[in-house]
Amino acid sequence: MSGEDARRAGPSRRHFLTSAVGAAAAGVAAIQGGGAARAAEPFHGPHQGGITTPQQRHSYFAAFDLTAARREDVAALLRAWTDAAARMARGEPAQPWDGGLRLAVPDRTASGDDGYAKPDAAAMAGDSGETAGLAPARLTVTFGFGAGLFEKDGMDRYGLAAQRPAALAELPRFVGDQLVPAQTGGDLSVQACADDPQVAFHAVRQLVRIADAAAQLRWVQSGFLADAGAAQTPRNLMGFKDGTNNPPTDDAATMAQFIWAGDEGPAWMRGGSYLVARRIRIAVEHWDRMRIAFQEQTFGRTKLSGAPLGGKSEFDAPDLDASDSDGNPVIAENAHIRLAAPTANDGARILRRSYSYNDGINLTAERWPPWRHELEYDAGLLFVCYQRDPRSGFSRIFERMAKFDMLNQFVTHVGGGLFACPGGAGEGEFIGQALFAAA
Amino acid sequence: MSGEDARRAGPSRRHFLTSAVGAAAAGVAAIQGGGAARAAEPFHGPHQGGITTPQQRHSYFAAFDLTAARREDVAALLRAWTDAAARMARGEPAQPWDGGLRLAVPDRTASGDDGYAKPDAAAMAGDSGETAGLAPARLTVTFGFGAGLFEKDGMDRYGLAAQRPAALAELPRFVGDQLVPAQTGGDLSVQACADDPQVAFHAVRQLVRIADAAAQLRWVQSGFLADAGAAQTPRNLMGFKDGTNNPPTDDAATMAQFIWAGDEGPAWMRGGSYLVARRIRIAVEHWDRMRIAFQEQTFGRTKLSGAPLGGKSEFDAPDLDASDSDGNPVIAENAHIRLAAPTANDGARILRRSYSYNDGINLTAERWPPWRHELEYDAGLLFVCYQRDPRSGFSRIFERMAKFDMLNQFVTHVGGGLFACPGGAGEGEFIGQALFAAA
Repeated sequence: MSGEDARRAGPSRRHFLTSAVGAAAAGVAAIQGGGAARAAEPFHGPHQGGITTPQQRHSYFAAFDLTAARREDVAALLRAWTDAAARMARGEPAQPWDGGLRLAVPDRTASGDDGYAKPDAAAMAGDSGETAGLAPARLTVTFGFGAGLFEKDGMDRYGLAAQRPAALAELPRFVGDQLVPAQTGGDLSVQACADDPQVAFHAVRQLVRIADAAAQLRWVQSGFLADAGAAQTPRNLMGFKDGTNNPPTDDAATMAQFIWAGDEGPAWMRGGSYLVARRIRIAVEHWDRMRIAFQEQTFGRTKLSGAPLGGKSEFDAPDLDASDSDGNPVIAENAHIRLAAPTANDGARILRRSYSYNDGINLTAERWPPWRHELEYDAGLLFVCYQRDPRSGFSRIFERMAKFDMLNQFVTHVGGGLFACPGGAGEGEFIGQALFAAA
Repeated sequence: MSGEDARRAGPSRRHFLTSAVGAAAAGVAAIQGGGAARAAEPFHGPHQGGITTPQQRHSYFAAFDLTAARREDVAALLRAWTDAAARMARGEPAQPWDGGLRLAVPDRTASGDDGYAKPDAAAMAGDSGETAGLAPARLTVTFGFGAGLFEKDGMDRYGLAAQRPAALAELPRFVGDQLVPAQTGGDLSVQACADDPQVAFHAVRQLVRIADAAAQLRWVQSGFLADAGAAQTPRNLMGFKDGTNNPPTDDAATMAQFIWAGDEGPAWMRGGSYLVARRIRIAVEHWDRMRIAFQEQTFGRTKLSGAPLGGKSEFDAPDLDASDSDGNPVIAENAHIRLAAPTANDGARILRRSYSYNDGINLTAERWPPWRHELEYDAGLLFVCYQRDPRSGFSRIFERMAKFDMLNQFVTHVGGGLFACPGGAGEGEFIGQALFAAA
């Protein structure tokens, strides 16, 4: 390895340490891991990546609270994040390893001798390095703005309140919501998706470090998809295929109609999309006791094939009018897919991009008659959807589902958020630049 | 899909639901996911899988408390688990979907009309189905026995106390241990490893359901490895390569000397191995502030290449006697690799098989001068190692590391356990059968 050779050749260890690491890091894309997903997704473009991008296998979602006092600090943060995200999407370290590209760092009083880095130290660990040698793994980093960027506790902190889109109104409180504040909301969101969990976590971890005094983590959620292959819809932890009826991302007209923000809101959101995230705990231990027939009635789909009940194959349109020989609907009135169907929601469509999560177990003394339960899985779905307007998208659809969906016996919404994800950045621009230029 | 065709053809939905699901599930191996890892690892053999098996990318570790009253119930559990694990390793459901292979189920009083399954219901959901259509993903399931199988609270619960190996003595309390009871110990252990996180979690989830009244979860931990490819050693969350100096698993003599139990203990452990697991939190947010040079001195290795300090490439033997021009050791006296080196530990060797974990964040008010910390990652390493005898393996090596390793500034052992993993099962046998036959 050339960096290694450089190190061995020189007389000054300190000097060559720095240059060797820098040189080798710059060549990371050439080293590359042995995984299947060597491909890089483009970072720059009219839309942000990670929305219509074919879904990667792993995700790390992070919501941040802004701690920056000044508007220019927020803009500087977004510029630094944009640069770092673009570098990481190419498989490069978030920052050159010689410690370049950094926001102002608060005064560190530690001396050099105790191992603590000084902010100007050339050898400061920039990127934490755990993706060195790995492929870009189709990393995308999608940034979103929560209501708190525009207004918090009644304060227009950054002079951006006039630019808040009407579509970024607070979500209504839905029936059954049990949202935990520590897993809900945030002023900024970052969703990193990649085919390698280390790449996704690494991306957010670098952004956290770069954010430094300007923003701090509020909540995070890692997630995964089963490796079902491109030809199959992956199954969620309930064993059912999830995402079957998504609008086609290669249909520009459909995307423009339902997913991308247009002229209806502020100019800076044009080409963007609104992200609704919901951390949905699934009572897996409960669900696993149900008959398959009951599970299928709950969803309105066949478990194994994914076909709507009464249909033949996964992609058949559900026949919501069909009834059986007793006159009962084949797809129950409160079946999940009936309540989610566009025809039942004035044609509303959202682009789902969810990940299963698995955060271990919680012991519980709760009992559901007639069974004792000694544990519950802290597992479920980080439901993520994108839409042109959440009022006619998620909220329109979920308002009735929250009340009537049979699935509600098995799922609890415990966290989440709503974020305005602006359009993409061109080369040299940063995500949200038009917002800061407009206000 | 043949199951789907069968379903459509018949007049009785209930009847064909059952047979369609059964037929299609039996053909799961033929459907197969599109992932890279279609291969299946053999379940049966002289050793259990998941020890010398090339490490898979995902892991779900589970420790159980036995609740069975009788010895024959424990044996029945192990037989059912063995059968289910062998099926899942082939890519089949844990149980035939018609509800076969089940332990006795406690009385369920629910009627059939509320959707709750009766134990004898033919349509009962056996396998929860979320791996239908997926490849086996090289699944291995490795079973271990904790001290509590042999003796608990001074009681010989199952008449097995005389068969407890001397090597299964409690681990000593190491300096710095902060083991949380809820993440420590257990009477039985199951480590499921696969190249797909859904496959690994699925396997444990089926075993939990099968265990029913005989055992219940005590603690779990999911983990992952970066996709570094077979030619590279994966990096842990500290950005360093982890596992470089593992003994060669294809060297039968080395495995027999250091990893596989021989004649020194009870006959039922012959061909088995002792598993030490430690849940090690890494103060990532702290580590990321360190200079690379300091990180390298801490490990005794170069970050990027993985070479020992003073060496040239990753697999060079560390020169523990080398000193620099000032007479100081090139590899510090308290560097991680010096304390771990076989030459520093009477030649002791262990087979490490660890996974990174990433369980989100905890908010904390703790401050490490001179910096404020508003969060800490709940991330680190589920350290897993196998050895012939933990007294001359992990405990021998870790006793000094716990006291002196520079790395201890950044890591905290918060959980884990010691388990005796018996030898493998032949066709028709179950894991641990020799123990139950001997006692």
